Amino acid sequence: MKIGVLGTGEVGRRLASKLVSLGHEVVIGSRTADNADAARWAAETGGGHGTFADAAQGAELVVNATGGLVSLAALEAAGADNLRGKVLVDVSNPLDWSHGFPPSVATPDGGSLAEQLQKAFPEARVVKTLNTMTNTVMVEPSLIPGHHNVFLSGDDEEAKRVVAGLLGSFGWEPDQILDLGDLSSARGTELLMPLWLRLYQAVGPADFNISVRQAG
Amino acid sequence: MKIGVLGTGEVGRRLASKLVSLGHEVVIGSRTADNADAARWAAETGGGHGTFADAAQGAELVVNATGGLVSLAALEAAGADNLRGKVLVDVSNPLDWSHGFPPSVATPDGGSLAEQLQKAFPEARVVKTLNTMTNTVMVEPSLIPGHHNVFLSGDDEEAKRVVAGLLGSFGWEPDQILDLGDLSSARGTELLMPLWLRLYQAVGPADFNISVRQAG
Repeated sequence: MKIGVLGTGEVGRRLASKLVSLGHEVVIGSRTADNADAARWAAETGGGHGTFADAAQGAELVVNATGGLVSLAALEAAGADNLRGKVLVDVSNPLDWSHGFPPSVATPDGGSLAEQLQKAFPEARVVKTLNTMTNTVMVEPSLIPGHHNVFLSGDDEEAKRVVAGLLGSFGWEPDQILDLGDLSSARGTELLMPLWLRLYQAVGPADFNISVRQAG
Repeated sequence: MKIGVLGTGEVGRRLASKLVSLGHEVVIGSRTADNADAARWAAETGGGHGTFADAAQGAELVVNATGGLVSLAALEAAGADNLRGKVLVDVSNPLDWSHGFPPSVATPDGGSLAEQLQKAFPEARVVKTLNTMTNTVMVEPSLIPGHHNVFLSGDDEEAKRVVAGLLGSFGWEPDQILDLGDLSSARGTELLMPLWLRLYQAVGPADFNISVRQAG
């Protein structure tokens, strides 16, 4: 599949590298065409790089791995025409570090960033996922032994199936992929971040995750 | 131990009953002295009942099991003199249902309810715990097989040790009790509620919990 990954930070490069290793044609996009991290990543992996618009334009599926507070601007730069009808996998978290630790979670219009992005790009098919864990675990769930979960939120059932398939190719088993329902459920996963950051301090390093356990 | 439980809803009665069964002298308190649920509970269990002040007055340890939006008022009714120097176990969640489902989490002064209560009653020793699960699991963790967690947040280390001991008497194993640090970490557990409610919809009934799993 042709995939555009928006964001050239650690999360974006980790996801992009995994996707290349799985045989996808990946272009990572940044604010500028000459981003040094992106160029280095492309040279090392054989992927492509360019602007946000370059990454989204030819893609069949787009991943938003930008920082949550700049995601709306990044998608605007990518362009509504380049997102129309496409699955938009949103892995970002709208953390506001302006007052130091702990960051607060920005809740646009009282909801989630994912809903804000969906509202701004109504013809994209937004699926929120993977935003509840560190990037190494995203692409290699077996780092953590036993059962643990990744969540899905989205209004488009077919888009969620596509994303569940992609997660499966990363190594997530069906019983680990937990569909929380429509996109408003992203409020729940985005608001997990304050607890995640405290857990990181209490039990770090960052390669931990949560498992939902039910009564026997 | 003499324990006052503020709140005569399902959570308060469940905790109070468990504490009676463990041999504690328990008084449950409500806004009025003649609360019918409280009187029935007392008749059934041999515990006592009365106003919030009645419950707190003779207690060595006080449990706040009132609804989060009325907790400050309940503690004011209990009286600062009756809370001074005591461990105050806060199991409440500040959920605002005024706009229906999903409720929003009230974050007093940008922080947690637990910190707001501590600030209002600086001589109480507030420990936030048990607010991340349904009341049946609180008092009987073995309902859920395998590893799952209860969290502790508080500024007073000795108070956290007392509460950890109480949790141990409920059946929580030491490796299940996860100390998140100072009381500001209660922001993390209070903000878990939106995800908890979505999980309840996705995997309910309510007797589930989360387990923090680390890399091997």
